[in-house]
Amino acid sequence: MELEKDERIDDLQYKGLKIIQNEKEFCFGIDAVMLANFAKSGIKENSYVVDLCTGTGIIAILLSGKTKAKKILGVEIQEKIVKMTKKSVEMNNIGDRVEIICKDLKKLKDDVPSGTVDAITVNPPYQAKNTGIVNERDSKTIARHEISCTLEDIIIESARELKSGGSLYMVHKAERLVDVLFYMRKYKLEPKRIRFVHPNENTAPNLILVEGVRSGRPFLKVEKPLYVYKDDGDYTDDIKEIYEVK
Amino acid sequence: MELEKDERIDDLQYKGLKIIQNEKEFCFGIDAVMLANFAKSGIKENSYVVDLCTGTGIIAILLSGKTKAKKILGVEIQEKIVKMTKKSVEMNNIGDRVEIICKDLKKLKDDVPSGTVDAITVNPPYQAKNTGIVNERDSKTIARHEISCTLEDIIIESARELKSGGSLYMVHKAERLVDVLFYMRKYKLEPKRIRFVHPNENTAPNLILVEGVRSGRPFLKVEKPLYVYKDDGDYTDDIKEIYEVK
Repeated sequence: MELEKDERIDDLQYKGLKIIQNEKEFCFGIDAVMLANFAKSGIKENSYVVDLCTGTGIIAILLSGKTKAKKILGVEIQEKIVKMTKKSVEMNNIGDRVEIICKDLKKLKDDVPSGTVDAITVNPPYQAKNTGIVNERDSKTIARHEISCTLEDIIIESARELKSGGSLYMVHKAERLVDVLFYMRKYKLEPKRIRFVHPNENTAPNLILVEGVRSGRPFLKVEKPLYVYKDDGDYTDDIKEIYEVK
Repeated sequence: MELEKDERIDDLQYKGLKIIQNEKEFCFGIDAVMLANFAKSGIKENSYVVDLCTGTGIIAILLSGKTKAKKILGVEIQEKIVKMTKKSVEMNNIGDRVEIICKDLKKLKDDVPSGTVDAITVNPPYQAKNTGIVNERDSKTIARHEISCTLEDIIIESARELKSGGSLYMVHKAERLVDVLFYMRKYKLEPKRIRFVHPNENTAPNLILVEGVRSGRPFLKVEKPLYVYKDDGDYTDDIKEIYEVK
């Protein structure tokens, strides 16, 4: 495996899976790992899964190990990152199930026909458009800000791709809660399950994990909170379980 | 003070305020007290406040003590309850600031002109229409189920009454989170502040306290969770503070 400058191989500590990341670029965070865990129980054998804004491919790679999905398509707009992510897929020998394509998610109609996908995962850019000063050509900025796509774009595209009854699994900042739930309902991806992630028991939630079901009936299940740290600064058992080697 | 059969006087343990309740009817719960506490900081001196679905008048009576609102109008559709609530107002000698009227909240245009209200509080019927078997003439059922008004009715009416920048404060079941946030945004009462109420630290939230601001800019502040009980079954300090005699 030939690595570019600043690229490194990280061991995911899970079924021998590895990932290539570039130290100067956006590296995956705990939110992506939490999302893969939140989504896995809903992804059945032989499913067709799409991971939008796949970036390093962390969610697609983890789901290849955590589920029996038949195919996982990772979509990423940034060519430089796609090149690296394809190497990660090759390195893990999962090319028969995981495919990475370089595409704008607003132009996927030919690659992904409407109503054909069982499950979608997405760890989208968190910052709303026009908030903060940004360099729009910087690849880290594209990963973090709604420059190439907005939350509404992602939800519209997910609603198009999913089969009736199929699920969109999303992680987002808690402050975007209204946007996420509003657009999901607006585009008929009914929010059915939500989990709030808190740094610890004494703090407000900073992240949300949400499942929206295509053409689902309104009824939301609010799950137990997910606390990341205990009072002593150690990870909680819930987080240890998410990271556990199996 | 003349009490009807099954009516009793309860001491609110707050500035000498009392309330009349009927043991056979819907009695107020901790949720109403939490809502009064959640709303009080936003209610300025000389405000005009409307309490929709006022029931026993618990929120209107508490706010008469907790704020310097000039006028608090309690609106209740059930005549039998209004009679009792008016006696509570009289008993507390707060008739100069608190008025209770028997009205369908969908027919308030003459009583409350559009765009004139500073703040609205509401502890609405929690159960969505057509869920569960109900006796539509039972007064407890009317307090608990969306028979006389739906959540959407309440939000439409609140948006009509409020001044630009005025706030709607609502308590609701956590499972109605999507409905509350969706309709608030739809009718331009932007959700700006939310607090989740959990029975304890290890359980999912069962209630939400939400503030929506008329014509507000989208940005949600998610507050620290409000836990009701400690591990030993005692109330948490947060709850004790809400109930505290001041």
